[in-house]
Amino acid sequence: MSSPSFLSGDPEAINEFLSRFDVRTASASVTTLTSNPKVFLFDCDGVLWSGDHLYEKVPETLEMLRSIGKQLVFVTNNSTKSRADYKKKFDKLGIPVEVNEVFGSSYSAAVYIARILELPAPKNKVFVLGESGVEQELESEGVPFIGGTDPAFRRDIEPEDFEKISNGKLLDPDVGVVLAGLDFHSNYLKTAIAFQYLQRGALYLATNIDSTLPMSHTLFPGAGSSSASLTKAIGREPLSLGKPSQAMMDAVEGKFKFDRSRTCMIGDRMNTDIQFGIDGKLGGTLAVLTGVSKKEDFLAEGAPTVPTAYVNALGDLLG
Amino acid sequence: MSSPSFLSGDPEAINEFLSRFDVRTASASVTTLTSNPKVFLFDCDGVLWSGDHLYEKVPETLEMLRSIGKQLVFVTNNSTKSRADYKKKFDKLGIPVEVNEVFGSSYSAAVYIARILELPAPKNKVFVLGESGVEQELESEGVPFIGGTDPAFRRDIEPEDFEKISNGKLLDPDVGVVLAGLDFHSNYLKTAIAFQYLQRGALYLATNIDSTLPMSHTLFPGAGSSSASLTKAIGREPLSLGKPSQAMMDAVEGKFKFDRSRTCMIGDRMNTDIQFGIDGKLGGTLAVLTGVSKKEDFLAEGAPTVPTAYVNALGDLLG
Repeated sequence: MSSPSFLSGDPEAINEFLSRFDVRTASASVTTLTSNPKVFLFDCDGVLWSGDHLYEKVPETLEMLRSIGKQLVFVTNNSTKSRADYKKKFDKLGIPVEVNEVFGSSYSAAVYIARILELPAPKNKVFVLGESGVEQELESEGVPFIGGTDPAFRRDIEPEDFEKISNGKLLDPDVGVVLAGLDFHSNYLKTAIAFQYLQRGALYLATNIDSTLPMSHTLFPGAGSSSASLTKAIGREPLSLGKPSQAMMDAVEGKFKFDRSRTCMIGDRMNTDIQFGIDGKLGGTLAVLTGVSKKEDFLAEGAPTVPTAYVNALGDLLG
Repeated sequence: MSSPSFLSGDPEAINEFLSRFDVRTASASVTTLTSNPKVFLFDCDGVLWSGDHLYEKVPETLEMLRSIGKQLVFVTNNSTKSRADYKKKFDKLGIPVEVNEVFGSSYSAAVYIARILELPAPKNKVFVLGESGVEQELESEGVPFIGGTDPAFRRDIEPEDFEKISNGKLLDPDVGVVLAGLDFHSNYLKTAIAFQYLQRGALYLATNIDSTLPMSHTLFPGAGSSSASLTKAIGREPLSLGKPSQAMMDAVEGKFKFDRSRTCMIGDRMNTDIQFGIDGKLGGTLAVLTGVSKKEDFLAEGAPTVPTAYVNALGDLLG
């Protein structure tokens, strides 16, 4: 556990923190463009918006950072959306982004399977527990898959299915990986099939294992809840390709070639976003209080994860 | 951890073990009826049968025990069936039992809610994640419930449901308990609603938390897998009313008034059945190898749960 090194949430403290990333000098004047831009990694849900509700001054804050040459990367654990889906969400909320600035956990998982695992075809097929975002990113990396949004798996289990799962008739012998993401259409049939693949030796991956999903001003079950049934049955955790897993940080760094010491992670969750930045040895981590974690979570003595600094809301960075 | 005190699985060792419960003398002659019968608690799946497959010599073994005056109680964690359902299963497989000899985890949960919790009406309503067995046993104890097999909850979550769950429109203000059992119709909608009840202070109970269910010669997700999504989301375990929880042992004892030192638990799972008997300070525990746990699981040095004795199959008790 790091010793608490965070600053308080007052404007002067914010200025001091931002000065480390050349956003302002310690005296709060905005700095000029640099040839070696510093990078800001943003979580999205709970930082920029909650569901379809955009937080105040978010577009202006991002525009301010862009205007002084900062590179922005949106690192999200939401696996239900592809990068292209995510850009649509930004567009709808009036935030200009490029698809390439978005790095989602589904993309992270697809990159891991295609470029790091490199399983020999045809035994590289993926059984997907999740939504279309996972499927789109697997397609973008050329990874074959089944399950996912296929209506054949979106049904109740029937008595005869138990035998068909046991004897392999409902299974594809080429499946070598089970990949679990947030699944709004989870059911016993899919869990039972995935469990059988794992019992037969398939690798167990997850886009991310967030326990909850902030929506409509409350918490809903997150991707970690979706995969928890399978995790309980098989008795071991999946390899997560989302925050705070450093497999994701490595993938982000591989793509954006940033200098970690010049990079700041901004997020609302201590155990995912902030831990992700701390484990990745970034230059700093900034917590916002508009999402899951509350001030008490990191100000408490013995708090396991402590950000470098915090603000009440991202818009506070505008000063 | 107890030191290994089990006997080997050979016939003489079995005789010696059974002599403790007056089934045979140490010299293997069958004993006579006694006025203070000794009690045998049986697990069902993995001991008597696997799915619809009855193991060899099971009816004969049970008949032998009955013929010498032993009391038999069938203690099952399967929450999908009520005691009446379970009797039908015994009938179908040709094993004579009375409904009163069956003690299931759904019944155990209903008894706990009705007689121990005694929540003041109308705030004693239960939101059920499970099948009709749970509903029947709640009805038998006069406990009001919603959810369960109601088709209104057996559907996909829709975008507008998130707001309706958040603002309470999809919730019943009288729900004070969430009870989770094995659910072949689990879905995101029910998990999200149950999670919202827990966030609002409802008690979290489970009929049982077995990770797997042996069926069709392999393993399927068990009740603990069904509730794992909710457990992950809320971040704490439910109170389990199934084996090895001693809440269940207390309920069984309350009903059957047995002398624990004269009682033997027979089961196939170390971490549920055998632990249940050990924690309950019963006179002995007997493992059978026809189910989940293998001999290596308890013969290994440092094994966490060690039965008093074991046999390859229940029919071996016939001698």
